[in-house]
Amino acid sequence: MSTTTQAPATPEGDMPDTEDLVLRTRALVREVVLPVDDQFDGDVTAAGGDDLRRQLQAEARQRGLLAPHAPREAGGLGLSMVQRARVFEEAGFSLFGALAINAAAPDEGNMHLLAHVATPEQREQYLVPLVCGDVRSAFAMTEPAPGAGSDLAALATTATRVPGGWRLDGRKTFITGADGAGFFIVMARTRGETGNRGGGTMFLAPAGSPGLHVGRHVPTMDRSMVGGHCEVTFDGLVLPEDAVLGEVDEGFRYAQVRLGPARMTHVMRWLGAAVRAHQVAVGYAAGRQSFGGALADLGMAQQMIADNEIDLAATRALLDVACAALDAGSPASQETSIAKTFGAEAIGRVVDRSMQLCGGLGVSADLPVARIAREVRPFRVYDGPSEVHRFAIAKRAVRAVREQAAR
Amino acid sequence: MSTTTQAPATPEGDMPDTEDLVLRTRALVREVVLPVDDQFDGDVTAAGGDDLRRQLQAEARQRGLLAPHAPREAGGLGLSMVQRARVFEEAGFSLFGALAINAAAPDEGNMHLLAHVATPEQREQYLVPLVCGDVRSAFAMTEPAPGAGSDLAALATTATRVPGGWRLDGRKTFITGADGAGFFIVMARTRGETGNRGGGTMFLAPAGSPGLHVGRHVPTMDRSMVGGHCEVTFDGLVLPEDAVLGEVDEGFRYAQVRLGPARMTHVMRWLGAAVRAHQVAVGYAAGRQSFGGALADLGMAQQMIADNEIDLAATRALLDVACAALDAGSPASQETSIAKTFGAEAIGRVVDRSMQLCGGLGVSADLPVARIAREVRPFRVYDGPSEVHRFAIAKRAVRAVREQAAR
Amino acid sequence: MSTTTQAPATPEGDMPDTEDLVLRTRALVREVVLPVDDQFDGDVTAAGGDDLRRQLQAEARQRGLLAPHAPREAGGLGLSMVQRARVFEEAGFSLFGALAINAAAPDEGNMHLLAHVATPEQREQYLVPLVCGDVRSAFAMTEPAPGAGSDLAALATTATRVPGGWRLDGRKTFITGADGAGFFIVMARTRGETGNRGGGTMFLAPAGSPGLHVGRHVPTMDRSMVGGHCEVTFDGLVLPEDAVLGEVDEGFRYAQVRLGPARMTHVMRWLGAAVRAHQVAVGYAAGRQSFGGALADLGMAQQMIADNEIDLAATRALLDVACAALDAGSPASQETSIAKTFGAEAIGRVVDRSMQLCGGLGVSADLPVARIAREVRPFRVYDGPSEVHRFAIAKRAVRAVREQAAR
Amino acid sequence: MSTTTQAPATPEGDMPDTEDLVLRTRALVREVVLPVDDQFDGDVTAAGGDDLRRQLQAEARQRGLLAPHAPREAGGLGLSMVQRARVFEEAGFSLFGALAINAAAPDEGNMHLLAHVATPEQREQYLVPLVCGDVRSAFAMTEPAPGAGSDLAALATTATRVPGGWRLDGRKTFITGADGAGFFIVMARTRGETGNRGGGTMFLAPAGSPGLHVGRHVPTMDRSMVGGHCEVTFDGLVLPEDAVLGEVDEGFRYAQVRLGPARMTHVMRWLGAAVRAHQVAVGYAAGRQSFGGALADLGMAQQMIADNEIDLAATRALLDVACAALDAGSPASQETSIAKTFGAEAIGRVVDRSMQLCGGLGVSADLPVARIAREVRPFRVYDGPSEVHRFAIAKRAVRAVREQAAR
Repeated sequence: MSTTTQAPATPEGDMPDTEDLVLRTRALVREVVLPVDDQFDGDVTAAGGDDLRRQLQAEARQRGLLAPHAPREAGGLGLSMVQRARVFEEAGFSLFGALAINAAAPDEGNMHLLAHVATPEQREQYLVPLVCGDVRSAFAMTEPAPGAGSDLAALATTATRVPGGWRLDGRKTFITGADGAGFFIVMARTRGETGNRGGGTMFLAPAGSPGLHVGRHVPTMDRSMVGGHCEVTFDGLVLPEDAVLGEVDEGFRYAQVRLGPARMTHVMRWLGAAVRAHQVAVGYAAGRQSFGGALADLGMAQQMIADNEIDLAATRALLDVACAALDAGSPASQETSIAKTFGAEAIGRVVDRSMQLCGGLGVSADLPVARIAREVRPFRVYDGPSEVHRFAIAKRAVRAVREQAAR
Repeated sequence: MSTTTQAPATPEGDMPDTEDLVLRTRALVREVVLPVDDQFDGDVTAAGGDDLRRQLQAEARQRGLLAPHAPREAGGLGLSMVQRARVFEEAGFSLFGALAINAAAPDEGNMHLLAHVATPEQREQYLVPLVCGDVRSAFAMTEPAPGAGSDLAALATTATRVPGGWRLDGRKTFITGADGAGFFIVMARTRGETGNRGGGTMFLAPAGSPGLHVGRHVPTMDRSMVGGHCEVTFDGLVLPEDAVLGEVDEGFRYAQVRLGPARMTHVMRWLGAAVRAHQVAVGYAAGRQSFGGALADLGMAQQMIADNEIDLAATRALLDVACAALDAGSPASQETSIAKTFGAEAIGRVVDRSMQLCGGLGVSADLPVARIAREVRPFRVYDGPSEVHRFAIAKRAVRAVREQAAR
Repeated sequence: MSTTTQAPATPEGDMPDTEDLVLRTRALVREVVLPVDDQFDGDVTAAGGDDLRRQLQAEARQRGLLAPHAPREAGGLGLSMVQRARVFEEAGFSLFGALAINAAAPDEGNMHLLAHVATPEQREQYLVPLVCGDVRSAFAMTEPAPGAGSDLAALATTATRVPGGWRLDGRKTFITGADGAGFFIVMARTRGETGNRGGGTMFLAPAGSPGLHVGRHVPTMDRSMVGGHCEVTFDGLVLPEDAVLGEVDEGFRYAQVRLGPARMTHVMRWLGAAVRAHQVAVGYAAGRQSFGGALADLGMAQQMIADNEIDLAATRALLDVACAALDAGSPASQETSIAKTFGAEAIGRVVDRSMQLCGGLGVSADLPVARIAREVRPFRVYDGPSEVHRFAIAKRAVRAVREQAAR
Repeated sequence: MSTTTQAPATPEGDMPDTEDLVLRTRALVREVVLPVDDQFDGDVTAAGGDDLRRQLQAEARQRGLLAPHAPREAGGLGLSMVQRARVFEEAGFSLFGALAINAAAPDEGNMHLLAHVATPEQREQYLVPLVCGDVRSAFAMTEPAPGAGSDLAALATTATRVPGGWRLDGRKTFITGADGAGFFIVMARTRGETGNRGGGTMFLAPAGSPGLHVGRHVPTMDRSMVGGHCEVTFDGLVLPEDAVLGEVDEGFRYAQVRLGPARMTHVMRWLGAAVRAHQVAVGYAAGRQSFGGALADLGMAQQMIADNEIDLAATRALLDVACAALDAGSPASQETSIAKTFGAEAIGRVVDRSMQLCGGLGVSADLPVARIAREVRPFRVYDGPSEVHRFAIAKRAVRAVREQAAR
């Protein structure tokens, strides 16, 4: 079995023109996606879920904008992390924009992972249909308390060897996109006991497999993810040997391959949503008369507008630093933790100030700001709460100082 | 016509025992109100609106807890502002608690206003049925842009004299409780032109009057107000002479009588909601294991818990200062602006930290924190956005320093 | 030996008129103290230390303003905590104001402690001359790392029995007022070993005793404390039996008697300093022209002014809550921790905003704001850093929730 | 007269190796500069001012590190803005580091200005001796209230034509480095009246010219600038025709040439100071035992450390974005305003948290943190207070939205 953690390179000469992609993505979003977003209040259930997805992706496909991050040989545009930053931000301007270009979570991260780890056969079976939008996927790692996401020692779902393959048992929760997914990437314990580290392995499991049950949608405040955030149960799910993704016991290492970039693409998309909230608010404040002048010319409004500009610029700048490090082959753990933590909080502040600037309209559905607020708030929790990232950031900083002192 | 701006005094000897009221209100809320709140996700539309109100108020009436703030001769318990602070906070622990004891906005403020300004006949006709829960009411002051709430010069709704009374024309918006209200207190211009100050007058208008139209509900993010926040139109609404509340052209002065206390009772109720979010979060953090110990014992969690305690204590302390000033007969403009501004923001911070502490559950409907967050956010806008209050607070501070310098 | 933890009561009928005291303290500060403060840049070394103290206290004595907090029978005015809050705030308007009325740290806290714990003989010998300003004192508890302040287990200074008394050995640091103090209250270990809890005892040690050495001044950024913050060494210091303050091994309990109120009086004094910075800044902003109007009328300046008003009001409100609890006989641990933590941070914010409002002058010695900033910053560290208080506040909140759940 | 606003290009082939320069600058700072900084508490007056400067610069010259930003033909190393970012940050690690490599304000900005605007003769006379450290210089633009810095309309200093040249009259304040400067670049009004815009012109005035008086040092809280911040008076100062720098009436345009980059180099230097405070604090926290473990392993300490890492990274990222825009020839007004505003505030936060982490030592002169705090605070005021930058940032954001809407 031949696996690699290096993504196939895109020939330099064929590099897409990012600036042009940005403009065309903008046009797609404004012309096609935003009207749907605004009509259905960004609620994908109200909007029809997979029907909507197929309709929007058909339009993006026609415009040559589908899966800009996916490898070219799998049908994507092969953008580097730095390149996708601007394109994904542009798509994120609508809550359904990333969906339209097939760059929404978790599919986007799963494509990234499959491109790095899957065998040629697995790519053919799973990656290609995912890139072209034939199916959706889910990434089943997080478990209900006291099981954990990124802590291998807490992994409770087990995969035990059976003749010809593996048998999986366990429970997952907050599995984004599970309802309607065509296949699942499942993390299960293949060595050791819960409470120790041992080893975790990733498996590819087609939807509809006996023993794979998609349960209720966790009723989260965000509502723009097709397929929701679901509870998933594995109850004697039997998978063949070639369902193993990568090497046995190496699952947590691959998860890191996925997590750093996935964190950054989250920031890109939500940054776009924050930009929209900000633009709506500035437009409102520029037009609204208050105390004998435009609201936008009052000092406290200017302070909110300026703080938004600063937060957006800083998020973008930190994102680029982390993406450049990832593109250079670094795991970029510190850079992505910093960009994720700052970004998630800054995006929340921007949307909150935008809401405040719009007054009564801001807290109503007559403007899109309140629903953007509803969508971005969980991002301070998802993909590692700010507190866990700060813990890791501090640990690394202290370690660096200790190592320096030890020299 | 005999009007007064002094509320009838409650004889000292009959003062209710506040501590006992607090405990009995707590029991009502835990036993009767919270189960309904949690069952329907604090969504009063889902919960049935006025049916629910009547059911909850019947229970409160039986327990002697109805309208603790209303004058005794109108059927209430006659609590001072300082006394109601703790009782309303206790009621606010559930999003429907104030509704249950008939102390929800806008009825609570309207009772306060009627007790101070109405004629005996008006009290009999409007105040008494309001206190005992037979009807609800609405306060129709805010107008769509560029009309304003507290700025008399912007008042666009007009009341013009017609034989035997007045004819009202204009539009209002964000009129809380309008859908299903038994009567409206309407602010209309009786002197001058929009753009100048002139004079405003309050009118009492029964629901169903020809020319009084309740329009759509503004789709706000909060959903716990019976009767919603509505658009209301007056299209040739004719009212008799005795529909005038207080004196002609004195409406904005009366509005001040209502606004200071109404701001404080808002803070009391939302403070109770924040206390619930905090208790839920501390309970969760105390039980949840994380990194080898209780989440509540981790330093960053402790910081959030401590900051919540500080914000709750400071809100309560500022509330008591303002309430004592109001009870002493001061307009307490600076004190109520400070308590409202700090309180609205502190309550928002407390609920947000509580949400963060609860992780994935915090942003889901499996705990009540996310819906409390949805309800309290607009309070930084309603009843005067923080920025307008800060403007007024600073103006008064500068004026005080200038006056001191002039001496 | 008769010791008590109850301060002698002041007869109700003789209660001083607090409002009058406030006005007279204000007059003393403006007429006598501020000119000295401003002339010497609030630097007590430049101002002459004890000479200045005696001169200012003579003026306060003549005006009947000396030691308003001390018991009447010891020569003070017998103010309760709530009463002294306004008087100390007024004194704190100048960095030397508390010194002038003999209510500066650590003497003020030491008077409080002696009034509660000392024998009649000790009161005569130590308390009376302290109240009337004949001597200063120091409280020697904090030790250099890894020794600690409030953690008994870390106490390293030992007191061992010798014939006729005790022998003290150890090192202290950050001992405020040590240089020139007439006597020291020293905490030393009388039971157990460092690392365990054991018992600590307080001793009264006259300055000049053989084996008691006052070392260098720790060069802190604040400079308004007469006698500095010093290192102190006990090297075979022998004290008689009656040098024990209170009971043997009860020293940490007495320290709590001192600490709660001492924390609050710190807040009172620094609150006064913050009020001065704010008034200077508002006065500056009201007079300074900028962008075609007064600086004080610009929105961002108004925001800073309003936030100052809010922070000052909230500090005052939390202070009053804690003082009322202390006056009612509660240890008020949560209330004083909250008021100290919020107060120290709010005071810092107020002074920082005031500095920003004054622009270039604000960061210069041409206005008093920068030197007030220099003085108040350490208060977020002294008397328990904010982080330690937050740790304790959270612990109590979690314990309360756990106890409630256990019922 | 030949003037240009394009700096002479450095041939690509000769580009210095930035990484190597960073390392050598680090070595210079650690080996030579820091010991002096720490010995004299960063107080340049105590350290001897120009004597110290010459001694440190001799060392830097020997190591080939002098004036890395200056054009090569004037004796510098010709670094671009992006390149100098890391070198200046490294120098800023000591308060005297930029002084040592002759990159301190205002000389560094003046070199930049002269390189862009001066005639060949002026370069020979002023730029070359400035680059090699023979003289210092001052930039005399800011005037006492109501005169202003960047507002041409407020310019009160006048230059009137006299036979053979110009006569200057007026007052300046906060003129950094004035005491001991070899020459001054003076902004004076050559057209219009105060209150209108008119035109301003820059003049080169040698120290010692009759009518040029350097007055008192404004007693600012920062003390690391050689030559202080002084008041300067022009009282009939007569200058020849060739003292005009650039074109008559074009002074404010040139000031912009200087201001953008000068703002960024300020951020670079203070960023280095913040890095030192952070490293000292992390080192302290890693070594200090508290509550049974290292202080650095407590959650609240980790939060402060992580927030420092985030603030430092975001400042660096915004700086690089602005520097790249400047290198590309953009005025980069929005980018430099954002980087300056965020950077000045973030640097202040980093140093404040570092101080808090170090407890009692943090607020003493036993560690360098408190003196770094004293130095960086004024940066939120100097070079445009945060409020003025926010005003400008918001104006540009609103204009962009209005222009977009107008299309």
